[in-house]
Amino acid sequence: MNQKELFKKALQRTFMNYEELAVLTLVGIVIGLCVSLFEVFFGYGLEYMIEIHHRTKNWLLLILPLAGLLIVYLFQHTGKDCMKGMNLVFEVSQGISKRIPKRMVPLMILGTWISNLVGASVGREGVAMQIGAAISDTFSKPFLKYKDAKSIFLVVGMAAGFSGLFGTPFTAIFFAMEVLVAGVLKYRAMAPTISSSFSAAWLSSKFGIYKKFENIQFPFEITWKMLLALVGLGILFGIVGGLFAYTMKKVKRAMKRKIPDPYKRIFYGGIVIAIVLFVWNQGRYSLLGENLIDAALRYGTIYWYDWIGKFVCTIFCLSIGFMGGEVTPLFAIGSSLGFMVASFFGFPPVMGAALGYSAVFGAGTNTFLAPVMIGMEIFGFQYFPLFFIVCAVAHIVNRHQSIYALQKREG
Amino acid sequence: MNQKELFKKALQRTFMNYEELAVLTLVGIVIGLCVSLFEVFFGYGLEYMIEIHHRTKNWLLLILPLAGLLIVYLFQHTGKDCMKGMNLVFEVSQGISKRIPKRMVPLMILGTWISNLVGASVGREGVAMQIGAAISDTFSKPFLKYKDAKSIFLVVGMAAGFSGLFGTPFTAIFFAMEVLVAGVLKYRAMAPTISSSFSAAWLSSKFGIYKKFENIQFPFEITWKMLLALVGLGILFGIVGGLFAYTMKKVKRAMKRKIPDPYKRIFYGGIVIAIVLFVWNQGRYSLLGENLIDAALRYGTIYWYDWIGKFVCTIFCLSIGFMGGEVTPLFAIGSSLGFMVASFFGFPPVMGAALGYSAVFGAGTNTFLAPVMIGMEIFGFQYFPLFFIVCAVAHIVNRHQSIYALQKREG
Repeated sequence: MNQKELFKKALQRTFMNYEELAVLTLVGIVIGLCVSLFEVFFGYGLEYMIEIHHRTKNWLLLILPLAGLLIVYLFQHTGKDCMKGMNLVFEVSQGISKRIPKRMVPLMILGTWISNLVGASVGREGVAMQIGAAISDTFSKPFLKYKDAKSIFLVVGMAAGFSGLFGTPFTAIFFAMEVLVAGVLKYRAMAPTISSSFSAAWLSSKFGIYKKFENIQFPFEITWKMLLALVGLGILFGIVGGLFAYTMKKVKRAMKRKIPDPYKRIFYGGIVIAIVLFVWNQGRYSLLGENLIDAALRYGTIYWYDWIGKFVCTIFCLSIGFMGGEVTPLFAIGSSLGFMVASFFGFPPVMGAALGYSAVFGAGTNTFLAPVMIGMEIFGFQYFPLFFIVCAVAHIVNRHQSIYALQKREG
Repeated sequence: MNQKELFKKALQRTFMNYEELAVLTLVGIVIGLCVSLFEVFFGYGLEYMIEIHHRTKNWLLLILPLAGLLIVYLFQHTGKDCMKGMNLVFEVSQGISKRIPKRMVPLMILGTWISNLVGASVGREGVAMQIGAAISDTFSKPFLKYKDAKSIFLVVGMAAGFSGLFGTPFTAIFFAMEVLVAGVLKYRAMAPTISSSFSAAWLSSKFGIYKKFENIQFPFEITWKMLLALVGLGILFGIVGGLFAYTMKKVKRAMKRKIPDPYKRIFYGGIVIAIVLFVWNQGRYSLLGENLIDAALRYGTIYWYDWIGKFVCTIFCLSIGFMGGEVTPLFAIGSSLGFMVASFFGFPPVMGAALGYSAVFGAGTNTFLAPVMIGMEIFGFQYFPLFFIVCAVAHIVNRHQSIYALQKREG
């Protein structure tokens, strides 16, 4: 080939690259808008379930074991594969499974609604991201000619799901990119992930109001003493987050081994956890844990063992088969822990709660920039240095424990 | 192996991991402190050279070709290998070269001092990072048993060098990690990189004052219109930054082919550029370009062609063999370009300059988070969303053009 042909080829390739870029960015917007509608539907329904649960003053906890049976029945009869939850998303990304069945969307929504209606201690982001991934996956077919299209579409969908539910587009971008391949950011997925995340946050902001804690005012200057305190907090949060991921994995496995029948597992386990949730501070550790987050960041009544309560109940509920996720419970664990230990490290309790909120989430999910972003988006961009240091230390201490068993580890 | 032995092995491995972590973090601090002393020495000397140059009212430009001969002579007779500059660092990281010779430190310092004394349009960060890498490399010997030690120590040293000279520890961390392997952050290097970067910034802050532009006040809310404007700016900055990297590569290669003798290259090239620098606005485009940065961000006298002047002169000076780097010139190009085009996109000129400052730097060096960080560290953390969007778009548009010929491309 002569120079001219080489140049022509290079030009062609460049053009194709930009074409791909433009196409994916636009598709990202469409996916973001589409996913966010599902998230709004899912989110409103979830709020409604939680409201019913509160109105009935926790008595619905008594039917928790039965609700568990219903969930298992639903999945056993309509979508066994969907039971895998986040792991299915990882499998598709790694080529182990071919696709995410569309049934996953209504199934996961129903499962999470029921779980919350009866007061199980579960999150919601897992389902939000699975909805996003499933919808995005159906969009991917015409674009499989692009390199890594399968993975890119999953990331795009997960970001839209997270962003549409939580209203934090920056966190969603990094969380989706970090979670799928821990330690490595896939820059090729960047453009569509950003466009889907922003459009999802925009559309769902038209429907609902997200929580920001702008009450936190903490002027600071980084001194050596403060740096040490931040490192100390980071180590603590890293250990707790890592422990959460580790314990979750072990307990899930042990439960499956001890009670292989999923009906029996969720029923008998449900009886135990229903009693615990009902008796231990009257449902303080059921549901998402927003009561603890609000207490730590606004009202200020936190018991020293609150984080343990949420820790234990969440792991138990998810291990026996309830649906949702672990991110909001991780926020709750982190903020109540941070609130408790803050003064020991010389921080005001509310600031400690904010730092714990983000860092325990990062350590539990084996992400680094996502928790920094959530800290900035929820509490204010000016706190970047504090969140950076605490989350970096927590991430380093954690050493790749993750709630996602199939997460790839690189770097 | 039975369960107990497996557990013991796992425990042992965990312990070794944490031992490595602690050791590397502490070594990082030592490297950071050590490197920052060299940076302070280098930085003070550089300021002194620039002062002399200014005092003699640009007349020193007349001996620029002779100074060029001196630089080539120095390198030809004492350290040919060192001529490779940043590429040598990349070669060591990729195992192509074995080590960075210690002579590189004094040679690069001298070369940059001379280049600045006579008013060549060059930066300083390349040398700052090479000093860091060379010093860090000598520390690495006892720790080669750790996996990837060679690369980790280079990153640690580069971060310390950047941080010690610019006083921006967060930028330094991401820049060093992103630059060595574009598109992939090496999380294993995180702990020592953070510790070296912070300790370097701390120690050298005791000696000098870094520039921050806290005069910029720009309350904003992200609307669709603003988002489009940011994307537009990002595309423009991405093209200019990418063009800088591309042109640099081409011109360097062409110069070497046309005039293979390095003495002749720097001498005849020097005559041309000395005349250009002297005649074209009396030395406005010589040296680091801080005059343009100050003008764009403070005083407000910027010609529409300023960015072109700096663009052309920097590429020419570096291509014929002068030493320094390209980051500060990239800041200057970006801020004068941003200043010019800002009003077209509906931004105040100073904000446009700030955005250009960071995004053109990112596109030219093929980094993404480093420019976001420099924007936040220099102009204020609250502008994170603006810098994020502009730098992300610039990074995506650029598609891996880099001033560093040997930079690895992944992701």
